[in-house]
Amino acid sequence: MPLDEEKNGACVRSIYVNNPHLDSMTDDILYHFNLGTSTHDLPAMFGDVKFVCVGGSPWRMKSFTEYIAKELGLSGTNAEYPNICAGTDRYAMYKVGPVLSVSHGMGIPSISIMLHELIKLLYHSRCTDVTVVRIGTSGGIGLKPGTVLITKQSVDSVFQPRFEQIILGKPVVRSTELDGELAEELLQCGKDLAEFDTVIGNTMCTLDFYEGQARLDGAFCSYSEEDKQRYLAEAYAAGVRNIEMESSVFAAMCKLSNLRAAVVCVTLLDRLKGDQLTSSHDVLKNYQERPQALVGHYIKKKLKDSKKS
Amino acid sequence: MPLDEEKNGACVRSIYVNNPHLDSMTDDILYHFNLGTSTHDLPAMFGDVKFVCVGGSPWRMKSFTEYIAKELGLSGTNAEYPNICAGTDRYAMYKVGPVLSVSHGMGIPSISIMLHELIKLLYHSRCTDVTVVRIGTSGGIGLKPGTVLITKQSVDSVFQPRFEQIILGKPVVRSTELDGELAEELLQCGKDLAEFDTVIGNTMCTLDFYEGQARLDGAFCSYSEEDKQRYLAEAYAAGVRNIEMESSVFAAMCKLSNLRAAVVCVTLLDRLKGDQLTSSHDVLKNYQERPQALVGHYIKKKLKDSKKS
Repeated sequence: MPLDEEKNGACVRSIYVNNPHLDSMTDDILYHFNLGTSTHDLPAMFGDVKFVCVGGSPWRMKSFTEYIAKELGLSGTNAEYPNICAGTDRYAMYKVGPVLSVSHGMGIPSISIMLHELIKLLYHSRCTDVTVVRIGTSGGIGLKPGTVLITKQSVDSVFQPRFEQIILGKPVVRSTELDGELAEELLQCGKDLAEFDTVIGNTMCTLDFYEGQARLDGAFCSYSEEDKQRYLAEAYAAGVRNIEMESSVFAAMCKLSNLRAAVVCVTLLDRLKGDQLTSSHDVLKNYQERPQALVGHYIKKKLKDSKKS
Repeated sequence: MPLDEEKNGACVRSIYVNNPHLDSMTDDILYHFNLGTSTHDLPAMFGDVKFVCVGGSPWRMKSFTEYIAKELGLSGTNAEYPNICAGTDRYAMYKVGPVLSVSHGMGIPSISIMLHELIKLLYHSRCTDVTVVRIGTSGGIGLKPGTVLITKQSVDSVFQPRFEQIILGKPVVRSTELDGELAEELLQCGKDLAEFDTVIGNTMCTLDFYEGQARLDGAFCSYSEEDKQRYLAEAYAAGVRNIEMESSVFAAMCKLSNLRAAVVCVTLLDRLKGDQLTSSHDVLKNYQERPQALVGHYIKKKLKDSKKS
């Protein structure tokens, strides 16, 4: 399939599924969404989707939907957005206009299941020109808590921009390259808003929140404060400004399926100064609203531009 | 700390935290549970816990609590079990008598965060003699769907009983040994019940549901049906009878913290015959109730034995 197809004279960016077996299936059950091609009219339900926002917490994805509905003037009085995946508790999914919002739980395996089924959902729905943004939380390195970081490169625990996928017991290395132009556009949105600090930097993606991120407060810890500081200083020197647990497989899978993708995470604390989240509930809540404000601004801007052209 | 301590003449099995930093912390915030040592009286809330059941789905862990309350005669009329972690949507936690029930989401990173905080919770609560059982769902290899499998060894994608933890960027290999005696006791419970097939076998734990488990129905697939069958046949030859996504880190972390641990998963399909979950909702629901029936029977038996002695 070509990267971009001509359709009615306009250049259209299609979604790839790199799986020859799918075409021979009469039905495709998206088990963890409780949706399927024979039980649901996916093109009717999702064909108009242009933006997908994903995040760990189902509550946050619901609140994002309410927020974006208001921003786009699409919320009626007492508008309620039903959870499209109400038949399962694995993920939650909401839709308002061209914006789909999906939760992905915590960690690479959890977001990977969601992305396999999301990519197939967008493909079966014949969506085109879709932008996917992960809005999340993270630990910062050398940044003021509350800073919003747009990921330049997602790197592994030795600061390399790669994701290792095990296939039939063998490792296959995939690129974690994200869309540079989109990252710059999002940075500009942060400047437009001027409500909080927004920066671009590298994001380290780990398989674990405690030992994998050099925390001293897990159930197990075999290293010293000095070891921790040395490791975080090495990460900083490699351009890493925050740490989270989903960006590498997110970048790799979006790239493979030709989806324009970005990662926008707020930093809840500065890991150079501590490990525990001691800020008040209200402060943390305010921080968590920042990525959604930034991405909401971006979506509004894009929809305004597309109406003009 | 010794493996077993003498307390009032009785042999007591303590919980380990292998982290010297914890003792110097004035407060410990269990962030993903929304609990903490300075905000909650953990020994009063959890000191009597003897059994912890963990599973991916919050709904299933709630239903397990209702089931075990009834089985143990601890449920009043219209009994309601509040979610102890109601302040967060990361995990759900319920308690009835000596039984704690906690959800862990999907995949190694998600269960690992939960286990770090659970182990610290049990430690801070000064719990002793705790048994932890993961009750879950899985794909079977060469087993009739609905079979309940008790894990002998949790193995990785090349069928080795090990879990690789990255610490400060370097891999540390941990044993995934589970309690053999507990597994045999659980097998006996399956025989007592005689309601479904219960077997002991090895469990393969993967980081991914689609490519990592040789499925042909993901968004990406670079191998043939023959490649898939060859890989699953190799797994079968190595004693693997089911595949899931949490057992290796669960086994490793329970072993490190001196918790008696078992993994009891029902197989929802036979992967040699297909990849999609095509069974009806009711059939799958019935399958998912089997691990909870088996573990419920075990807990009842143990509590009866302890009253006798």
